[in-house]
Amino acid sequence: MSEIIGHNYIGGARSAAGSLTLHSHDASTGEALPFIFSQATVGEVDAAAQAAASAYPAFRNLSANRRAEFLEAIATQLDALGDDFIALVSRETALPSGRIQGERARTSGQMRLFAQVLRRGDFYGARIDRALPERQPLPRVDLRQYRIGVGPVAVFGASNFPLTFSTAGGDTAAALAAGCPVVFKAHSGHMATAERVADAIIRAAEQTDMPKGVFNMIYGAGVGEALVKHPAIQAVGFTGSLTGGGALCDMAAARPQPIPVFAEMSSINPVLVLPEALQVRGEKIASELVASVVQGCGQFCTNPGLVIGIGSPRFFAFTALLSTLINEQPAQTMLNAGTLHSYRNGVQALLDHPAISHLAGKAQQGAQAQPQLFKADVRLLLDGDPLLQEEVFGPTTLIVEVADKAELQRALESLHGQLTATLIAEAGDLQSHGELLPLLEQKVGRVLFNGYPTGVEVGDAMVHGGPYPATSDARGTSVGSLAIERFLRPVCYQNCPDALLPEALQNANPLGINRLVDGHYQRAPL
Amino acid sequence: MSEIIGHNYIGGARSAAGSLTLHSHDASTGEALPFIFSQATVGEVDAAAQAAASAYPAFRNLSANRRAEFLEAIATQLDALGDDFIALVSRETALPSGRIQGERARTSGQMRLFAQVLRRGDFYGARIDRALPERQPLPRVDLRQYRIGVGPVAVFGASNFPLTFSTAGGDTAAALAAGCPVVFKAHSGHMATAERVADAIIRAAEQTDMPKGVFNMIYGAGVGEALVKHPAIQAVGFTGSLTGGGALCDMAAARPQPIPVFAEMSSINPVLVLPEALQVRGEKIASELVASVVQGCGQFCTNPGLVIGIGSPRFFAFTALLSTLINEQPAQTMLNAGTLHSYRNGVQALLDHPAISHLAGKAQQGAQAQPQLFKADVRLLLDGDPLLQEEVFGPTTLIVEVADKAELQRALESLHGQLTATLIAEAGDLQSHGELLPLLEQKVGRVLFNGYPTGVEVGDAMVHGGPYPATSDARGTSVGSLAIERFLRPVCYQNCPDALLPEALQNANPLGINRLVDGHYQRAPL
Repeated sequence: MSEIIGHNYIGGARSAAGSLTLHSHDASTGEALPFIFSQATVGEVDAAAQAAASAYPAFRNLSANRRAEFLEAIATQLDALGDDFIALVSRETALPSGRIQGERARTSGQMRLFAQVLRRGDFYGARIDRALPERQPLPRVDLRQYRIGVGPVAVFGASNFPLTFSTAGGDTAAALAAGCPVVFKAHSGHMATAERVADAIIRAAEQTDMPKGVFNMIYGAGVGEALVKHPAIQAVGFTGSLTGGGALCDMAAARPQPIPVFAEMSSINPVLVLPEALQVRGEKIASELVASVVQGCGQFCTNPGLVIGIGSPRFFAFTALLSTLINEQPAQTMLNAGTLHSYRNGVQALLDHPAISHLAGKAQQGAQAQPQLFKADVRLLLDGDPLLQEEVFGPTTLIVEVADKAELQRALESLHGQLTATLIAEAGDLQSHGELLPLLEQKVGRVLFNGYPTGVEVGDAMVHGGPYPATSDARGTSVGSLAIERFLRPVCYQNCPDALLPEALQNANPLGINRLVDGHYQRAPL
Repeated sequence: MSEIIGHNYIGGARSAAGSLTLHSHDASTGEALPFIFSQATVGEVDAAAQAAASAYPAFRNLSANRRAEFLEAIATQLDALGDDFIALVSRETALPSGRIQGERARTSGQMRLFAQVLRRGDFYGARIDRALPERQPLPRVDLRQYRIGVGPVAVFGASNFPLTFSTAGGDTAAALAAGCPVVFKAHSGHMATAERVADAIIRAAEQTDMPKGVFNMIYGAGVGEALVKHPAIQAVGFTGSLTGGGALCDMAAARPQPIPVFAEMSSINPVLVLPEALQVRGEKIASELVASVVQGCGQFCTNPGLVIGIGSPRFFAFTALLSTLINEQPAQTMLNAGTLHSYRNGVQALLDHPAISHLAGKAQQGAQAQPQLFKADVRLLLDGDPLLQEEVFGPTTLIVEVADKAELQRALESLHGQLTATLIAEAGDLQSHGELLPLLEQKVGRVLFNGYPTGVEVGDAMVHGGPYPATSDARGTSVGSLAIERFLRPVCYQNCPDALLPEALQNANPLGINRLVDGHYQRAPL
């Protein structure tokens, strides 16, 4: 196990110029861990951004194959982080070791997926319109387009996935794949974990001879503002709260040169339980749904926070069963004291609301989160009550009963943008509620059938995104290979000599990639 | 010729609820034309946005083929606008009829290009990861992704291309192709033109049975703010000034639900004239460059506003020749009084600057724009003087002489983002200045070789975009078929029954499109 020295990572070296220090904590006991982290000074934030800017010209111009090798080396390094690492992450986050092992595999798998994307070459978006010198009334020039990385990217990770959505997580992987050097702001909830992962990335960068500054990491509270405002930074990836993401968006928009922010923020992930499904398998649904609500102490962006059903004796029984099951669920330790504090406040706000009733769950007290079940009057949804649109991060969910199909439609229309929506439905339900699907599609990034939204597959077809406030830009995803597109921009060459063109656009097609040539896709050389 | 009644276009009907009226003007004489336009009231702006929102669910769900038929019908209607239309546009803009005829063909051609994109089907971005029920440690669910239109789009056209960048221009075409209904803010510089074009679009919508509200248009000064802030609007397309675009970006970012703005704003389009090219064909370059500077009275976003060369007796002679040629160029009428006013101010600011010298051009006076040539000390570029980064919209350009290759590199590094950069170079120049190309690629959307940036081909490979302030989002283009991507977002289906999937994602692949299936592109059914 490499020593944890707590210095910032700048341009391939370590730096601790400031006097402010930070501690990481044991998430279960609150005890400070024996590591000291040096908060980055303004000068160090600047140096980290400059290091990324210096690496950019060389890194973006590396062949896709070289970048793929770098990502694969990171994956190997991540896989090699051993039991001591798993124990450390567990200690900082209170997440069980099995979960961390799975997350480690998912994080290295994600790196390998982006390596595949690089080798496949479709991320180039290569397009060629050949010259038409005889065209009337005007000849056509030769035009060739491909995509390049936008520049250095600032990444802010999440507390709830200390590996997959953090230091070497999806945003970092997507940015590096795109050819964008990264400055990562280490999450204050797992700084020792961040250091071990950053070490793994740096080892991989050295092994594969990447430019210094391809990956940088800074520690500290409040250092993110200077990072987002730094002129060298060209895009931001963020996973966290609506407040945090909104603040970054505002900073980015107010820069002399505004830059895009891809923030994944807040979603309540409605689950619609339809009548036939209730009839056929109500008990099974209740137990699966409760398992999804309390899984990982409910600390998922895709946690089902809203359950909607059509009023009936069967739905009444289903609600009663959910109550019984929620009452049986044990309290769990949350990621850190701040998360528990927010959960307590969120639960209290629901308890205090006159049109929301508390159905199940022990009184929230002590150092752990108690699972809770609430029921809200549908009018709150229809009238746009903000409390029903806000994510309560933790093991709680809220039932809304609608009178009929028409009210269900109106309730869904009143929802804000979501990461996911789920239909628990039999074939007959789907037939009689055909109008729901187009509406859900307009509201969310992912529509699930007879599953539960917790569990986000990393692949080509995944969308972990959706309309605001689920994310700040519905046109992206922060999970899956499409995430690379957020950090690419097109460049066009007009009448460029073949030898000077990037390989992706040369006549001979040396990369063997699929290209749109004169309106048709082909791999053949020209 | 249909009558021009000057009412707003809302949901397929006409509306003139307000009392404020506007006139259009003869651009050459300043005389008011005999048409009255009714400024949209707040209620009418709301109604237009609501009409677009009402059309959205039906319009976005039409087959791509149906939308293609709509775009082709618009193209046919545009082509059928006759000589009286050409004369009207000329009168409102002072642009010659030959230019307007060319622009009409370009605008209908653009509609047909997007129809091709719709039929090709790659805009769907269809991706399928099939279920792997046996996968260890966890099975993989079936995931399928495609892209849908983001929702109603507000479009603001430009004055300088009354057809191609206006009512039925690239932003409108891209949005409609994506399945997004449009609310167009008629440009105050050519409202009669806008009405004739809107009529053409509405005729096409009726012919092809599009939902009412697929295209709406409002007249008025200041009505854009209410439009951009309207909750139904989901994205904005804009072509115009940095001030105007910046204001829209700020409004969009400050909405309760922030939305993306694609603003094409300000570019000075540097042209680098390298030594061997000067030696081989200096006179030819000078006459071509001057022709590009004064073409269309310099009223192009891609007008070459900065000419950079390495100091030498030959560059000195080239500069002298440019001066002679500029002095020979006649004054021209600009698009409108406001444009001339801005040009006059821009020229005066250059004249007033102590480190900028005036090389050629008659004193700016009267109702027409006089072509001008200036020379600035390279230090102004290196020190980031804002005057050298600002577009002066009109027939003027500015020479900067650098001492050597190293200073050329530094001068280019100091440039802000641009739509284009041009290399006028012989093979030997390119060999000895290889370091320039990667740098230019980082600064611009399009790099030209031995051509001139005025003249933007509409095709698959064009990029009319670039880093800020050329545009507000370097990841898009406002010309060419890639422009559709600005208005699309991905949606993912998890374990969706085949019959309920959109056609693009069904097993049988009824659209016959290319899809990424389990990591490989294929057209075969599953």
